[in-house]
Amino acid sequence: VANVRLSAPKPFVRLQHTKPVHQVFAPLDTFAPRHIGPDSNEIQAMLKQVGAKDMEEMLSKTIPSSIRSPKPLAIKEGIPERELLGRLKAIASKNKVHRSYLGQGYTDTVVPNVILRNVMENPAWYTQYTPYQPEIAQGRLESLINFQTMVTDMTGLPIANASLLDEGTAAAEAMLMTWQAARRKKNLFVVDENCHSQTIACLKTRAESFNIEVVTADIFNYKFDEHKKDLCGVLLQYPNACGTVEDYEALTSSIHSAGGQVAVATDLMALALLKSPGEFGADIALGNAQRFGVPLGFGGPHAAFFACKDEHKRRMPGRLVGVSKDANGKHAYRLALQTREQHIRREKATSNICTAQALLANMSAMYAVYHGPAGIKAIAQRIHNMTAVLAAGIRENGLVVENDGAFFDTLSVKVDSSSSILQKALTKNINLRAINGQTVGVTLDETVTQADVADLLEVFAQEGAPAVSIDTLASALPQVNSFPIQLQRTSAYLEHPIFNSHHSETEMLRYIHHLQSKDLSLVHSMIPLGSCTMKLNATTEMIPITWAEFGNIHPFAPVDQTDGYRIMLQELEKDLEEITGFDGVSLQPNSGAQGEYAGLRVIRAYHDARGDSHRNVCLIPISAHGTNPASAAMAGMDVVIVKCDEDGNLDMEDLKTKAEKYKDNLSAVMITYPSTFGMFERGVAEACEVIHKYGGQVYMDGANLNAQIGLTKPAEIGADVCHMNLHKTFCIPHGGGGPGMGPIACKSHLAPYLPGHPVITTGGQNAIGPISAAPFGSASILPISWAYIKLMGGQGLTNSTKAALLNANYMASRLAPHYEILYTNENGMCGHEFIVDIRPFVDHGVAAIDVAKRLQDFGFHSPTMSWPVTNTLMIEPTESESKVELDRFCDAMIVIRKEIQAVLDGSVSKENNVLVNAPHSLETLMADEWNKPYSRESAAYPMPYLREKKFWPSVSRVDDAYGDRNLMCTCPSPEEYMDQ
Amino acid sequence: VANVRLSAPKPFVRLQHTKPVHQVFAPLDTFAPRHIGPDSNEIQAMLKQVGAKDMEEMLSKTIPSSIRSPKPLAIKEGIPERELLGRLKAIASKNKVHRSYLGQGYTDTVVPNVILRNVMENPAWYTQYTPYQPEIAQGRLESLINFQTMVTDMTGLPIANASLLDEGTAAAEAMLMTWQAARRKKNLFVVDENCHSQTIACLKTRAESFNIEVVTADIFNYKFDEHKKDLCGVLLQYPNACGTVEDYEALTSSIHSAGGQVAVATDLMALALLKSPGEFGADIALGNAQRFGVPLGFGGPHAAFFACKDEHKRRMPGRLVGVSKDANGKHAYRLALQTREQHIRREKATSNICTAQALLANMSAMYAVYHGPAGIKAIAQRIHNMTAVLAAGIRENGLVVENDGAFFDTLSVKVDSSSSILQKALTKNINLRAINGQTVGVTLDETVTQADVADLLEVFAQEGAPAVSIDTLASALPQVNSFPIQLQRTSAYLEHPIFNSHHSETEMLRYIHHLQSKDLSLVHSMIPLGSCTMKLNATTEMIPITWAEFGNIHPFAPVDQTDGYRIMLQELEKDLEEITGFDGVSLQPNSGAQGEYAGLRVIRAYHDARGDSHRNVCLIPISAHGTNPASAAMAGMDVVIVKCDEDGNLDMEDLKTKAEKYKDNLSAVMITYPSTFGMFERGVAEACEVIHKYGGQVYMDGANLNAQIGLTKPAEIGADVCHMNLHKTFCIPHGGGGPGMGPIACKSHLAPYLPGHPVITTGGQNAIGPISAAPFGSASILPISWAYIKLMGGQGLTNSTKAALLNANYMASRLAPHYEILYTNENGMCGHEFIVDIRPFVDHGVAAIDVAKRLQDFGFHSPTMSWPVTNTLMIEPTESESKVELDRFCDAMIVIRKEIQAVLDGSVSKENNVLVNAPHSLETLMADEWNKPYSRESAAYPMPYLREKKFWPSVSRVDDAYGDRNLMCTCPSPEEYMDQ
Ligand SMILES: Cc1ncc(COP(=O)(O)O)c(C=O)c1O
Ligand SMILES: Cc1ncc(COP(=O)(O)O)c(C=O)c1O
Ligand SMILES: O=C([O-])O
Repeated sequence: VANVRLSAPKPFVRLQHTKPVHQVFAPLDTFAPRHIGPDSNEIQAMLKQVGAKDMEEMLSKTIPSSIRSPKPLAIKEGIPERELLGRLKAIASKNKVHRSYLGQGYTDTVVPNVILRNVMENPAWYTQYTPYQPEIAQGRLESLINFQTMVTDMTGLPIANASLLDEGTAAAEAMLMTWQAARRKKNLFVVDENCHSQTIACLKTRAESFNIEVVTADIFNYKFDEHKKDLCGVLLQYPNACGTVEDYEALTSSIHSAGGQVAVATDLMALALLKSPGEFGADIALGNAQRFGVPLGFGGPHAAFFACKDEHKRRMPGRLVGVSKDANGKHAYRLALQTREQHIRREKATSNICTAQALLANMSAMYAVYHGPAGIKAIAQRIHNMTAVLAAGIRENGLVVENDGAFFDTLSVKVDSSSSILQKALTKNINLRAINGQTVGVTLDETVTQADVADLLEVFAQEGAPAVSIDTLASALPQVNSFPIQLQRTSAYLEHPIFNSHHSETEMLRYIHHLQSKDLSLVHSMIPLGSCTMKLNATTEMIPITWAEFGNIHPFAPVDQTDGYRIMLQELEKDLEEITGFDGVSLQPNSGAQGEYAGLRVIRAYHDARGDSHRNVCLIPISAHGTNPASAAMAGMDVVIVKCDEDGNLDMEDLKTKAEKYKDNLSAVMITYPSTFGMFERGVAEACEVIHKYGGQVYMDGANLNAQIGLTKPAEIGADVCHMNLHKTFCIPHGGGGPGMGPIACKSHLAPYLPGHPVITTGGQNAIGPISAAPFGSASILPISWAYIKLMGGQGLTNSTKAALLNANYMASRLAPHYEILYTNENGMCGHEFIVDIRPFVDHGVAAIDVAKRLQDFGFHSPTMSWPVTNTLMIEPTESESKVELDRFCDAMIVIRKEIQAVLDGSVSKENNVLVNAPHSLETLMADEWNKPYSRESAAYPMPYLREKKFWPSVSRVDDAYGDRNLMCTCPSPEEYMDQ
Repeated sequence: VANVRLSAPKPFVRLQHTKPVHQVFAPLDTFAPRHIGPDSNEIQAMLKQVGAKDMEEMLSKTIPSSIRSPKPLAIKEGIPERELLGRLKAIASKNKVHRSYLGQGYTDTVVPNVILRNVMENPAWYTQYTPYQPEIAQGRLESLINFQTMVTDMTGLPIANASLLDEGTAAAEAMLMTWQAARRKKNLFVVDENCHSQTIACLKTRAESFNIEVVTADIFNYKFDEHKKDLCGVLLQYPNACGTVEDYEALTSSIHSAGGQVAVATDLMALALLKSPGEFGADIALGNAQRFGVPLGFGGPHAAFFACKDEHKRRMPGRLVGVSKDANGKHAYRLALQTREQHIRREKATSNICTAQALLANMSAMYAVYHGPAGIKAIAQRIHNMTAVLAAGIRENGLVVENDGAFFDTLSVKVDSSSSILQKALTKNINLRAINGQTVGVTLDETVTQADVADLLEVFAQEGAPAVSIDTLASALPQVNSFPIQLQRTSAYLEHPIFNSHHSETEMLRYIHHLQSKDLSLVHSMIPLGSCTMKLNATTEMIPITWAEFGNIHPFAPVDQTDGYRIMLQELEKDLEEITGFDGVSLQPNSGAQGEYAGLRVIRAYHDARGDSHRNVCLIPISAHGTNPASAAMAGMDVVIVKCDEDGNLDMEDLKTKAEKYKDNLSAVMITYPSTFGMFERGVAEACEVIHKYGGQVYMDGANLNAQIGLTKPAEIGADVCHMNLHKTFCIPHGGGGPGMGPIACKSHLAPYLPGHPVITTGGQNAIGPISAAPFGSASILPISWAYIKLMGGQGLTNSTKAALLNANYMASRLAPHYEILYTNENGMCGHEFIVDIRPFVDHGVAAIDVAKRLQDFGFHSPTMSWPVTNTLMIEPTESESKVELDRFCDAMIVIRKEIQAVLDGSVSKENNVLVNAPHSLETLMADEWNKPYSRESAAYPMPYLREKKFWPSVSRVDDAYGDRNLMCTCPSPEEYMDQ
């Protein structure tokens, strides 16, 4: 039997919440029934399976009645899809898209349309998860290693990671790397005053909690030799914030002599013409890869890059893709040094990076693949030449270019009055930067045309003076670089064939689709990752992301040009306040972990303001996500672990004891709710009371908010502040490891401390420093969450939560006869996710990883493996999966249980069976030789439907240990492949 | 060795034609180097292989110098991609997108965004070719059979095809079906005067050449029994053009009694509520599926549908997808009755349909899959209810609704003055239709909102009268249909599981991607189909297609609202005139074959105008494409075949003899250039002279224009008129079998006859009747060709032609040592395509089909098979393929040649070898049993790179004969699958 459509007919009666259709005008393109997987028939069947007569009974068995919200969500009825896009377009068009010469790490770029359509607008790319299952993720792993190769090539440093969140936090990571390298013993970090102001501000925020002293200095006049004792590192900007290209070689030597490490914030495009940081001796290079083909997007998302010397590689923050081999000895990519990344060294952590910017790193890598070395160089040269023409014209106009002879793309122009020049520019819809009252900054980019340069020259023209001829200027342009000759780049880059083979659109298109074909994503099957909420990322939510009105806005554009953004952001804030029950929101943190950090810093600021600076103990349950203690450590808190009982719940006694014990210094508790075991703990409200009683604040990790919306609220439960992973609950796609957004919401007493920003005003009256480089983090993906909430409406959101809970309980109930389900409540119910125990089989030779890999043979992504409990699988179906899909997954798990039984029974070999050999790649399955003790078909087609529809792993099981022993994090050369 | 990147580094120096990059301002996102596959290094290597020292030498060996254009193309330098989109946006925004209530077969629709993004905007769908290779096309074949099932369900007739070009030509096909059914002996075809005017006009154009008398009549008062002798058929419109739903049951009986067949032009949405044509006895049903989720697009492209009784199935025009089985006995789809379709019965043809509207049929089918029966019914009911509210309000306003009690979505409203009502509507940006001076038509659709109805009521409000309350109207609305009770639909539709399983967005997304995963397209590898020009369909060209400014315009919108379209169309016309050397262009024909027909009708009109109506002989070379004689027959011409010599060239002696023999009646010759053998025939200019000497006109089939642009021109060669397949030469993607566009260009003496249109003025002063239902055919895809020409510029286009010729000659030269290359010129050169001869192997048991299928095992689509010569393969690489890809293909062909040799040598079995068993599907390859006389790996991985990148056929070789014997053209039921 093949090619069968297994599903029986079912009428189209879906979970309705809008007016009944007989109401004449009710629109039919309502979204909630499209977002929620199960229809009403399925819901009935599922309720029956879980033994509840209706939804309300199911809920009452699942959620403590004490925390149920008294009122329905005060969010209007869902808006139909078509109407929503019309409304958002009207809002978006209130943004004014001016020509931006503001620079400061953000410039306009030409996004190659083949990349725009086939990566950024393609669900097969954007719905991928972080590539923890390398066998079904070789495509994006290859692309990320291309990114790493590009960064190492351009920076001249040997090791690069697969992206960080933004340049500001990357600089903070660099600072902490130098501090760690100095064994946390030297606390002076010197920053050139000519670094971008938002970078300096991010650094300072981060330095505070570690008691690192950040000194901003005129770097060439700083006496490093006088600070040998304390100096851990230095941050330079290359070219610097005024656009000047300095020769840092001697300076680097003297910093090294003083025992400091040199971190260089830089620009990949400039490095196409300039000597690389690695070549002049830098230890670390970092920056924003945005201008490599990622829209400005009002500040993000973009991929920050980070490269370092080999000696620092085990201190590398973020994810690192490496080359290893699979069970057949074939080259295969996978995340390297996972032990470092996943089990963050908690209390000693200086970095909490989890979600990063994979999708944007892929776009930037593809940009390099598309252009190749000569193409990148030509773009850089053209930008530079145009800047030189502009400089010549400004000179001709009688003005002084302060960094003449030493610029790449940015000029600092001395003027009588910056504000009047800026005003003049505005009349031409041009944005310039006021460096100070008498200096104006102009940064050129790839999109600039001759007409643009002519316009700029008019802005800088003296009243009544004759116009300068741009053609004359251009033809007089000397063919030399306008920076010191010794800074010219002579070394090659992007020499790998990958960057030299895909320059026609056809080749590029095929390369993108080839990589895509290796990667499982939500377009294939459910990705039931516990704690990750892999739900529908609906097209209507995604469409606005690539509108020019959102994409082409500089984060520091004058406020009156960003009304569209501001309306959208305010509406989103308001909705998030209603959903959480809180009073204030910061949209700045650009990942969940950044949200944690921001929230804890806000708590700290609150205590400080009350003279309680000594309050620095943070209670964290043992079951918490690794980012929790890492964030607490980064906030300068002392982490005290609270036990859990054997049901996975907070050990209330232990909590009380520790709260009391540390009462004088108690700062906060971090609680995840439902817990990371997927449980609605009964004791949660009491726990909050205990903490409050001892003067502490309650931080709620909102990763599991998808189980709460409309049914309960963090504020009602008793929390003071929480973050929300918009890339989980609010439909921002995971992008294969980012982008994400982790805004925080808090009660009014904390709101004054919400994070500020040095360039654009954000946050409370007593704002802490910025958490992210951009004022609203990755602002351009916020329309996704805005749209999700508006499309669903209050009732739709609530129905969605119900469906998420029902889906999980349905699966748990189907699997319970076959596997032990860890941690259910007294009614036998789980929350929105549940844990399947594999530990009973471990002694028999079957571990969680074997089940995870075998699921790939069924075309499925594994659930979350070995977290929060080793050798378990945590399953979170989300509301978007239909019963048909849940059943497919359950059926697979049940077949696998039978396969496990055969091992347990001893009827198949412990060392050589369909589980331990999983996944079975195509090559394995059709090798001429087949000496496995089971058949090819049972390996390949364990269920009949797989003959019609199956996703195939492109390599067999990847050897992690081998890769970590032989670390290799750039594209392998063709010769290396040949050796296989 | 696996996972190897085989290509060596190569610098990014591509075929340049723009200013050198050192020119400061020259933009770098120039398109030509991205469009053209080979870069300059590759071009050098390829020239060497073909034995030419430079491009010019290659050209001089290929093209007769006598026809080389004296001057370069007068088309400006290519515009960079970003600038082009800006320019087109400015043009597009000159279109005014008003609310359209114009109806007449075109209404607005809500395109589900998941379908928009994942089908219409997805190169994996739009770059597919017609599914002639079913093993690598099961996805779109399934979708097309969904379309057929949907059409049969809704119309109540058992057989439907996989789309026609538009409703007008579908009606013409229906007329001819009735005429053929009457053995061409009855020549009266009666049309209800209440059919859409453009449909009547299309019918009349088509009827002329067959001497069918089309009588427009008041259908209920027509005396059919008085015309028994002549009556072949009748066309009714249901609901009719005024919106009235008539009961045609009795009428149908009386037409049947008079020996006539009944064809019904209808509306799928109305049929959700109305008794189906099949149920009231109709023989044929047809119409436009546009309102099932395809944008208005100023008239197209949309899929027309066509269904008929079983007895007519072998007369079915267009393509028919059927169910058959593969070599393993597994269900498989494929094009049915291909003999009927491919070998068009030439001289007796009444239809020339080749390219149809597959992509749009897929969109409409997906719309039905997404909504399901209840969803479709709800949409229809809502439209109808709102129309009823509007009718009630208009009544309340004191006006008369002429079709009250008998409408679905369209009202005919009696007014004092249509023009003043239309004027009033325009002030609200509303378009209404003037049915006559005192009757206004209003047609509602799925997008209409309560506010829209309120606006309409204001338009129809009497001066000073109190406003009617829309809520009161709505609540008073009786829950009955406003048409005769006996016309209410009681039968079910869309009951198949396919239409009842994919209603959540997640399920829909996965279904689309699942089908996509089975289909090879240009995102995978080259599709070297001779005569089909499968070149890059660049993203920048495709992006504007889904802009609202192009998508949401009704074809009959007031002219002053379509300035944007008109500017774009005029620029395109001008460019096409320059490229062909002609003086006038018609953008109406919406396929190449329609272009042929249009061109021949223009020639006929020219002769008629000169009193030469007797000139009706059309000379056609034996090698011509099947559509050529079919089009000639449809134009009422007698086809006389001209021989070719053994080199594949026109037999000049035979041409002269026949031209002279038929000189008195000579109407035209049809010439394809380069010839369908891919040859630049030397004699072409002389052939044109001969024809002209005898008073004939030269029609050039422009399918091969890609070999001419910038090097020669149809007009310079001597042609009088030609068509251009914009879906070949000018980058409109093939969409899996359409859409396409086949505009014609002609000399000034023919221009007065270019086709007109009854609603919107087009064509010459003495225009022939319309060829298509819409004035500019599938207007909304014309921006693709406009953009291609503007992006490339004259020099870019010319370079492209050169690269196309070089690519073909390079491949021919690489394959020549291994295969016989048919038909090269005296210098051993081919044109833009060439023919590989498989005939020498046929007696040994290897036919062209075996090579074609074996190529699938290499991840390639076969070249054109057995056309124009049986048992040959015709290869056209196009300019967009890089040398790397050409080499991959040649290497595959060379390996296959070795496999053939083994058969020839007798070293492998003739009946059981890797060729005759090809393609090898995944299921075959990993079956437990393997009893083939060769290894699995040699079947699966005949080249090492396939281990890294391969497209897998989803079924094994499909049995065509079985499917034709057991014709089944709707979705097979699950039970049928179970029987396997
Ligand atoms: C419970 C919990 N907290 C925090 C995080 C960190 O969020 P992010 O990856 O957005 O930094 C996660 C991510 O999976 C999580 O599951
Ligand atoms: C030589 C030739 N003429 C005419 C046609 C018909 O064009 P269309 O498919 O657009 O109707 C084709 C199509 O392949 C062709 O190759
Ligand atoms: O489609 C063709 O008939 O070539």
